[in-house]
Amino acid sequence: MTATHSTHLTHSTHIRPDVMHQVTLADVLRDHTRNRPGSLGAVCGEYRLDFPALDARVNQLSHALAGAGVGEGDRLLWLGQNCHRLIEGLLAAAKVGAVFCPANWRQSADEFAFVVNDADPSVVFWQEAEIGETLRQVRQDTGSKALWLQHDGEGDGSYEAFISTAPTIDPGVAIDEATAVLMMYTAAFTGSPNGALLSHRALVVQGSFMAQIQGVGADYVYLNCGPLFHVATFMTTLATFLSGGTNVFTPRADAEELCRLIVEEGCTGGFIMGPTMDQIIELNVDGRYNLKTLRAFPGKPEWTAMITVDTSGWGQKPAGYGQTEVMGMATLNALQPSIGSSGRPAPFVRIAMLSPDGEELPAGETGEIGVRGPTVMNGYFNRPELNTVRQAGGWHHTNDLGRIEADGSLTFVGPKGRLIKSAAENIYPAEVEACLKSHPAVADAAIIGVPDPKWDQNVTAIVVLAEGQTATADEIINHCRERIASYKKPKAVEFVDAIPRQGFAVDYDALDDRFGGGGYPGAGA
Amino acid sequence: MTATHSTHLTHSTHIRPDVMHQVTLADVLRDHTRNRPGSLGAVCGEYRLDFPALDARVNQLSHALAGAGVGEGDRLLWLGQNCHRLIEGLLAAAKVGAVFCPANWRQSADEFAFVVNDADPSVVFWQEAEIGETLRQVRQDTGSKALWLQHDGEGDGSYEAFISTAPTIDPGVAIDEATAVLMMYTAAFTGSPNGALLSHRALVVQGSFMAQIQGVGADYVYLNCGPLFHVATFMTTLATFLSGGTNVFTPRADAEELCRLIVEEGCTGGFIMGPTMDQIIELNVDGRYNLKTLRAFPGKPEWTAMITVDTSGWGQKPAGYGQTEVMGMATLNALQPSIGSSGRPAPFVRIAMLSPDGEELPAGETGEIGVRGPTVMNGYFNRPELNTVRQAGGWHHTNDLGRIEADGSLTFVGPKGRLIKSAAENIYPAEVEACLKSHPAVADAAIIGVPDPKWDQNVTAIVVLAEGQTATADEIINHCRERIASYKKPKAVEFVDAIPRQGFAVDYDALDDRFGGGGYPGAGA
Repeated sequence: MTATHSTHLTHSTHIRPDVMHQVTLADVLRDHTRNRPGSLGAVCGEYRLDFPALDARVNQLSHALAGAGVGEGDRLLWLGQNCHRLIEGLLAAAKVGAVFCPANWRQSADEFAFVVNDADPSVVFWQEAEIGETLRQVRQDTGSKALWLQHDGEGDGSYEAFISTAPTIDPGVAIDEATAVLMMYTAAFTGSPNGALLSHRALVVQGSFMAQIQGVGADYVYLNCGPLFHVATFMTTLATFLSGGTNVFTPRADAEELCRLIVEEGCTGGFIMGPTMDQIIELNVDGRYNLKTLRAFPGKPEWTAMITVDTSGWGQKPAGYGQTEVMGMATLNALQPSIGSSGRPAPFVRIAMLSPDGEELPAGETGEIGVRGPTVMNGYFNRPELNTVRQAGGWHHTNDLGRIEADGSLTFVGPKGRLIKSAAENIYPAEVEACLKSHPAVADAAIIGVPDPKWDQNVTAIVVLAEGQTATADEIINHCRERIASYKKPKAVEFVDAIPRQGFAVDYDALDDRFGGGGYPGAGA
Repeated sequence: MTATHSTHLTHSTHIRPDVMHQVTLADVLRDHTRNRPGSLGAVCGEYRLDFPALDARVNQLSHALAGAGVGEGDRLLWLGQNCHRLIEGLLAAAKVGAVFCPANWRQSADEFAFVVNDADPSVVFWQEAEIGETLRQVRQDTGSKALWLQHDGEGDGSYEAFISTAPTIDPGVAIDEATAVLMMYTAAFTGSPNGALLSHRALVVQGSFMAQIQGVGADYVYLNCGPLFHVATFMTTLATFLSGGTNVFTPRADAEELCRLIVEEGCTGGFIMGPTMDQIIELNVDGRYNLKTLRAFPGKPEWTAMITVDTSGWGQKPAGYGQTEVMGMATLNALQPSIGSSGRPAPFVRIAMLSPDGEELPAGETGEIGVRGPTVMNGYFNRPELNTVRQAGGWHHTNDLGRIEADGSLTFVGPKGRLIKSAAENIYPAEVEACLKSHPAVADAAIIGVPDPKWDQNVTAIVVLAEGQTATADEIINHCRERIASYKKPKAVEFVDAIPRQGFAVDYDALDDRFGGGGYPGAGA
C-alpha cells in the first residue's frame, strides 16, 4: 500500500502527460460520461449502470484506494468471477495509476498462493461464492499484508462498504498512457506464470482496432460469460467499453441464465464455447428464447438457426497469431487473404523473424517471432532478467517460431523450445517435428540433438508410427529432405510407442537421457 | 539547411525513442522491405518499385539530404504534381527527422511565394512541367536560400542527379514517433493558410484505422489521381502504404490515362471526382476498358455498371467530421448508425464541445468541437500565438461548432466564426443562421450582435427571402423561438436582397456597419 512496490516498468505520474495526444482508459470513461450519459455501460445482476453511474462508482473506488495508500504501479488483484466490479476495479486503477490484475479463479490453493505472493498486491478483491473457503486459507497461508475486500458481500471488509462514503467526483490524477494498467498472467507451458504488464496505450490502440475487426460499436451489447482473466474474452470487453457499448457480466456460463440475458439485454455478442452452445441448443429446442440479436460463429445447424451469423472480419476468420504479451492478436487472418496460416499484422504492428543472435531474418526463413508496436507489453512484473532476454534489441521476443511467406503474411511454426546447432546452422525442433508429423505413417514425433565432434550436433528423430502403418528410417529421412533444408533433416530415426510428455510439453530431457541427446548451444531463453 | 530551422514542435532525435513501442513511417518501410520484398510499393510512369527498390531510393535521398545539411525539423517542400518521388520525399523525411510538405501546385505565383516564405524550406522539390515558369519566377522573387531540385528532369540540379551517387543502405537514424513528418497547409476561409504539423504517430494510428474503414489491405492498389496536398486523397495513400499495398501515381486526372492504369495495374481504388467519372463514362461507352477491379462509390448508372461498388464502411457512408489538423476524420458515419450528422469518433479519438471559457459542455449543448488523441497535430508551424489559443486546456480547438446528440454522436453545426454575448449567454451565429435558413421562406441569412446597455448585445437577423416567398419579422422570430433557446432568437429582422460575402464567408463587418453591429466579447480565436 506504499510506493515501495513501484517498478521501473510503470511510468511516473509526476511527469505531466501530453494530454492533447494521449488517451487513457480513464479519459475514455470521462468522454462516455459527458457525451453519452444515457447509455448503459455495465449490467450485472441488479446493477444497471449508465456511464455517469459507472463513473461515479469508479471515482468512489479511486478515492477509497488513494485513501488506503494505493498509488502508482501498485497492484490490485481480482480473485473472483465476472462482475461489474471487475471493470470498476480496472477503471479505478486507470484513474490512480495502479495496475489491475484479474487472476484465474479456478486455480488450486497453491496456484492462488503463487499469484498472491508474486503479484504482491496492495488490495485483493476476493469472492465468497464458490471459492471463499479456499481464499481464506490462501490469505492465511501467504500471510498477505494486502487489504482484502470481499466483492460479493456487504458490511465490514466488503467492496461496497469500502466505497460507500467516498466522493463521487473525479480524482483528476494525471496518468501517462504508457503506464501499465492491466496485468495478466500468461499460461506457462513450463515453469511459473508471469504477469504481463499492459499499458493504457496498448489497450486503447488494440481495442480500437479490434472493435473494427469484430464489428463492435456503440450499439454492441457484450455478454461477458467467458474468463476475463484471459485476453481472448477481455479483448471484446475492451472493444465494447472503448466504443461506448454495454458490457453485461455473468459469473458463469450457465445456459439458462445466458439465454435470459441475451433476450433481456439484447446481447449482440458473447464468448460462448462449444459445450455451452450444446446446452443452449438442448434448452432452447422449442425456441422459447429468441436469440437472434446474438451475432455469433455458426455451429451445429440448430445453433446457427437460433443466432445471427457474425459477418464481421473476425466472425468469418477468427484466427491469427497472438499472445497476452502483445494484448491479444498480433496478426489476423481477417486482414485479407494470405498464404501464411496466421494472416497479416495490423499496420501499427511490426514483425520480424529473429535469428538466435537477434538478426532480422529475410522472408522465407524460420526464426523467433519478434513484435514491435504500441500493443507490446511494458514487460513482465518483477522479472528483470527475463525482460532483458525477451526485449533484446528492442524486439519483443515471443518465444514462438514463425516464417514470413512470399506475400508478407505469417505462418506460425510452433513454440520456440530449445535450439539444436549443426554445422553452425540453427535448427528449431518445432519446424522439423511438423515436417515429420506430415508423413502419413507418423502419429507423433520429436527431435533431439546428439553431440557430434564434427557438426556439433546431429538431429535424431524419435517417431511413433500410426496404428497399422509402416515406414523405414530412410523413408522418413527422405520425406524431410524433400521438404526442409537438408541440414535440418534427421540423421537417425528411433521408433518408440509413445513420446514422453509433461502436460502438453514433450519431455526432451527424458528423450536426451534415453537416446544420447546433448551438446545444445548455451543461448536462448 | 542548418539546424537553425528546428522548432519546438518537433521532438529531439537525441532522445533515443522507445523502439519496442514506437512505429515511424520509416519502420513501416523497413518491415515491408524485409517481409514482402516481392511486392510493388510504388508505380509511376516507367518506374515500378518493389519495396526494396523503393527503400533503396529513399535511403539514397536520405543520405543526400543529410549530406546537404538537412536534419531534424527541417522542411522539404514539394511543388509539383503526383509522383513516386513525392512518397520518396515523405519517407526520406521520416528517415532523417525532417518534415515533408506537399503544397498545392495549382496556386498563383503570389500563393507559391507565401508558402516558400512561410515554410522556409531547406529543400524545394520543383516541377518543370506545367508550372516551371511560374516557379522560376517565385524562386527569384522570394530570394529563397533553399536547395531547389527539379524532380521531373535529369542532370544538374535534378532530383535524380542529387540521389544518384548516394548509398542505398539505411541511414539508421533514431526518430521519435512524436516528431512531425508531414506538414499540410490548411484551407483558410479568411486570413492566410497555416501549416499543420502531423506526427509519425498521427499518420500510423489514423492510417491503420482508416485502412479498416476503407477496406484497404495488402492487395489494395490505389490510383493516386487526386490532390496529394489534400488530406482526403492522402489518407488513402497512407492506408495503402501502411498495409503494404501499391500506390500508383499519375500527375493529372486524365480519363484515358486513368482507364489505362486501372486496367494495367488492376487498381482497386482511386480518388475520382464527378467530372472525371463523366469523362470516363463517355470514353468507355463501348466498354473497351474493363474497370471492374475498381471499388468505388456508385454514381450514374453507366458508371456503376463499369465499376465494382465499394461495400466497405467508407464506401457506404463516406462522411463524418474532420480536418487536416486531426489527420483527416475525427468522427465517421461508418461507425454504426447515429443521430448526429457526423457520426461517432474512433475509439482513440476524444471529443468534447467546449464553451468559450474552455469548459467541457454536456451533451445537447452547442460548443466548439475539441479533439484529443494521437491523431491531433503537433501544432501549426511557426504560429506560437495561434497554437496557444488552439491548444488551450489541452484540447485541440477545431474552430468549428458542434453538438453531441443523445446517442453520443456528433452533429456539425458550422464554422465557429465570432461570438455574440447576450445576458452572459454565448450565441454562435452558425447555430442561429442554420435555424433561420430552415424557415421555408428564407433563402439566406446571417446574424449580428447589436450593442444593448442591459443585455450587452441583442441579435439582429439579416434575411434574404426566397423568390416569391413572404414572411414577417415576427414569423421569423417565432420560428426561431420554437427551435432554439429563447436567448438565441433574433430581437429584430432586417430584410435585404443579398448577404454580402467575401468568397464563401459572410462579410460581417459590412453587416455591422450597415445595421449597427458591435460590442462583441473580446475573446476567441
